[in-house]
Amino acid sequence: MSTLFTVERLEAFAAQVLVALGALDEHARVTARRLVEADLRDRTGHGIIRLPLYAERIEAGGINLRPDVRILHETPVSALVDGDNGLGQVVMTLAVETAIEKAKVSGLAWVGTWRSNHAGAAGVYTAMAMREDLIGIYFAVASANVMPPWGGRERLLGTNPVAVAIPAGAEVPFQLDIATTVASHGTIKVKSQAGESMPEGWVIGMDGEPITDPDRADEGFLMPIGGYKGSGLNFAIGVLAGILNGAAFGREALDHRAVYDVPANTGQAILVVRPDLFLSLDDFKREMDRQLKVFRGSESMTDAPVRLAGEQAAAIEAERRQDGVPVPGALLAKLRALAVRLGVDDQLVEQE
Amino acid sequence: MSTLFTVERLEAFAAQVLVALGALDEHARVTARRLVEADLRDRTGHGIIRLPLYAERIEAGGINLRPDVRILHETPVSALVDGDNGLGQVVMTLAVETAIEKAKVSGLAWVGTWRSNHAGAAGVYTAMAMREDLIGIYFAVASANVMPPWGGRERLLGTNPVAVAIPAGAEVPFQLDIATTVASHGTIKVKSQAGESMPEGWVIGMDGEPITDPDRADEGFLMPIGGYKGSGLNFAIGVLAGILNGAAFGREALDHRAVYDVPANTGQAILVVRPDLFLSLDDFKREMDRQLKVFRGSESMTDAPVRLAGEQAAAIEAERRQDGVPVPGALLAKLRALAVRLGVDDQLVEQE
Repeated sequence: MSTLFTVERLEAFAAQVLVALGALDEHARVTARRLVEADLRDRTGHGIIRLPLYAERIEAGGINLRPDVRILHETPVSALVDGDNGLGQVVMTLAVETAIEKAKVSGLAWVGTWRSNHAGAAGVYTAMAMREDLIGIYFAVASANVMPPWGGRERLLGTNPVAVAIPAGAEVPFQLDIATTVASHGTIKVKSQAGESMPEGWVIGMDGEPITDPDRADEGFLMPIGGYKGSGLNFAIGVLAGILNGAAFGREALDHRAVYDVPANTGQAILVVRPDLFLSLDDFKREMDRQLKVFRGSESMTDAPVRLAGEQAAAIEAERRQDGVPVPGALLAKLRALAVRLGVDDQLVEQE
Repeated sequence: MSTLFTVERLEAFAAQVLVALGALDEHARVTARRLVEADLRDRTGHGIIRLPLYAERIEAGGINLRPDVRILHETPVSALVDGDNGLGQVVMTLAVETAIEKAKVSGLAWVGTWRSNHAGAAGVYTAMAMREDLIGIYFAVASANVMPPWGGRERLLGTNPVAVAIPAGAEVPFQLDIATTVASHGTIKVKSQAGESMPEGWVIGMDGEPITDPDRADEGFLMPIGGYKGSGLNFAIGVLAGILNGAAFGREALDHRAVYDVPANTGQAILVVRPDLFLSLDDFKREMDRQLKVFRGSESMTDAPVRLAGEQAAAIEAERRQDGVPVPGALLAKLRALAVRLGVDDQLVEQE
């Protein structure tokens, strides 16, 4: 039901599609890489599945393919990146690279974006910092409002994600990448496709009663994690990634799946911390390794060992780098149709 | 059932108790202020209710009353504060003041603590930054392990709280102060003292069944917010507030309610951000006000308006500053007994 493609092939394909849509080579290359990185770590909802949607937004004029992505203000510890409505992956990649560079010198850096777009999987950006032995923390205003503030009835908040990646030594590092809602559109779609109902607590109706039919999820609101607690975290993330940077939040946050021709003014923020501000890097990594081992070796509720965030994604990434990235049949058909329509040479036809 | 006391009276009382226990005047004054600030914002579980427990730890030799609280390493954007096992409020107050000072100059500052102790309500520290027109973000390793990692059976994680305070203009500011567990010891203690049972979902037994008797909470595990998501956030907070600073985490994190005579090596971290790194402070506060109004004025599920985090606490604080802080009868009896035992002059006898 799925077909496997190498990382290189999928990256090249995604880049060709973006170039055919009018993107600059460099922007297409960066965006393709970030999309496939999402697929590699099993954040498939933020991977190449997004290409058809990006194509619709680009063709409707909702994304600027010749953006002047640049740093508006900066200090040794901060920068505001103006995305000029360019592809979100291009904007966020500059933001992370800027934050990494500054944190290496200053120890700490916070870079925000405005006039950005959907940038895909949060954990892809924190991983870039982690690969440089830095701690990465990412916040974003999600690209659609899916729930009211706690106690309200107007959709003013998205799934606003947070990601944290922490370097380790020999152990598989800890990498968290979560929406602050209990479920996401992706997980609901999976339930729908499997013909299963949703557990109570994922979606609540306008009448306050739970909705368990995944095909009726749009009639209600997603629920935040931990009730008022997650609702508050979600709002805080919106402020830190959105309001702080002059990006859209609340009523101004567009649903990028519904409105294609208007710039989204998406906001993101990345905080990068050099661990050796406190302990030496070696001591920090040694202690991370020790603690990761303690947690992973601690008594389990089941026969399987205790797993920490990022472990499953790392295993899947290793497997997919070796064996290829699976593309489900329905998605493959969509991508092929897109390639044909745009006159892209590679139409992801199996070569064996 | 409760007796009202002025802020000044309670602060003076708490300081006298701490001095009678052997604390330095200045340390007693700072600790008393932070405790009463918790009571003012209705974080009563972290207020003067803690005095009898602090007394037990102090008398058992578990807290150093003559600590050399000092900055070990620092950069323009960071500091590691060595608490030397002093009172947590004293250590964290120095940490926040240091972070505020550095953030005012550098724009951003992260200060961590090690060899600290329980420091009370998280939001008290972020509020200190907020009063200086700065954003405060606080993480702490909680002072007792109450749950396993997700899927585990060994208690390795505490209620690890996060607090965020964001300045506004004329509107009541947004202030979040949450444990990353559904319930906390404070809220459970309040239930116990009120003779009420806990809702299902706060605590789960070793057999997987819910526990609703607050006095049996210790037999089970607290539950993280949002299942594996909150469990991951909780672990991340533990790393950022604990491991990063060389503080206790996991198996080394003592239960400060059970082990009185051993230093806790508690870790905390405060991140302070100057909002004008991105927009001007005026623009930021104006936009915060506008958004706070939009959210608070949005359609409600009930007859009451939509409330954001920090609003109720601000209303309670205003009321208590005016009318006094209520001390429940059972707590008052404990505090009086403590005062009598220590020979403190003020025994909180009503004066009218």
